[in-house]
Amino acid sequence: MNAVELRVLQDGVVIDNHIVKVDSFLNQQMDVELVVEIGRLFYERFKNQKIDRVLTCEASGIGIAIMVAQYFKVPMVFAKKGSSLNMSDDVYQAKAFSYTKQQSYTFNVDKRFVLANKNVLIIDDFLANGEAVRGLIDIVNLARASVVGIGIVIEKGFQPGGAYLRDRGYNIASLCIIDKLENFKITLKKQAVL
Amino acid sequence: MNAVELRVLQDGVVIDNHIVKVDSFLNQQMDVELVVEIGRLFYERFKNQKIDRVLTCEASGIGIAIMVAQYFKVPMVFAKKGSSLNMSDDVYQAKAFSYTKQQSYTFNVDKRFVLANKNVLIIDDFLANGEAVRGLIDIVNLARASVVGIGIVIEKGFQPGGAYLRDRGYNIASLCIIDKLENFKITLKKQAVL
Repeated sequence: MNAVELRVLQDGVVIDNHIVKVDSFLNQQMDVELVVEIGRLFYERFKNQKIDRVLTCEASGIGIAIMVAQYFKVPMVFAKKGSSLNMSDDVYQAKAFSYTKQQSYTFNVDKRFVLANKNVLIIDDFLANGEAVRGLIDIVNLARASVVGIGIVIEKGFQPGGAYLRDRGYNIASLCIIDKLENFKITLKKQAVL
Repeated sequence: MNAVELRVLQDGVVIDNHIVKVDSFLNQQMDVELVVEIGRLFYERFKNQKIDRVLTCEASGIGIAIMVAQYFKVPMVFAKKGSSLNMSDDVYQAKAFSYTKQQSYTFNVDKRFVLANKNVLIIDDFLANGEAVRGLIDIVNLARASVVGIGIVIEKGFQPGGAYLRDRGYNIASLCIIDKLENFKITLKKQAVL
């Protein structure tokens, strides 16, 4: 098992059959040693690809994506949710729905930061229904750039996002795939070592 | 001049007398080499303090704060704006107003992640009116922890946040202080080398 799988089993808190909380080490408090190791694992997995940009969305993807970018020595770009006064009008936009926040978002990425023909590695902390990742893919497609890989820290294997993306041929690395959450117990899917 | 000051002068885009855009290297696209250097500069500035936690708020503080945490080898915690299904009810809350988003926020931090008597280093990308930093200070105070330092990447010296915090004795390091934005020109305040 890799460091993420070990940590999810040790410190993940099962709330119900769908939700596991990892806020003590990943998405509110971040264990920086683990996040550095996550960056290294994604680098090992994708280092043979040419990567020009790491793309994620705010908020909890950012801390992970910057570490991945540190390994690849390329810029990291994050999609913003909603608009702000200091954002340009010249943006790519995509819609996504957050189940944990029960809210629809518009992702905005300034057109200067995702360029045609560039190779993009998408990074996010969770993959469940795949809404956020599909929004990020939409942005890359609007820019006529290429998604060369998708790196997910924790995939909920019992929700449809992973299958949807694999069926469409995307190169996905999930560091930890949760097979099921039952009786407050986490069962992981066995994977070849990443 | 340090790397932040040089980069702000080179690539900061002045929109009007109050707003400078740094989204090409700091708060939508992040230049990871610069962010690593920001981490190093804050480490140099605060390394003689005992730091137990780095605290920031979503979203654009996260990428910077995790790099600072990497230098200090301590966990990073980010305040969430608003609530979500996977957040506990047992949170410290503080209010802040965002001028760039023209919106009030409630910051939420799970009580497990800011503990009494611990030393907290607050990090944020911008300091203008000081609303976000004051919200983070409120959270630290609610937890009976201590703010041992505040690290800001870019301070707008012509807005009142910096003076408000210095008057109250906080140990602030601003890597770049903008003295004025006039006629689309950025003038920095000269500082002793950080």
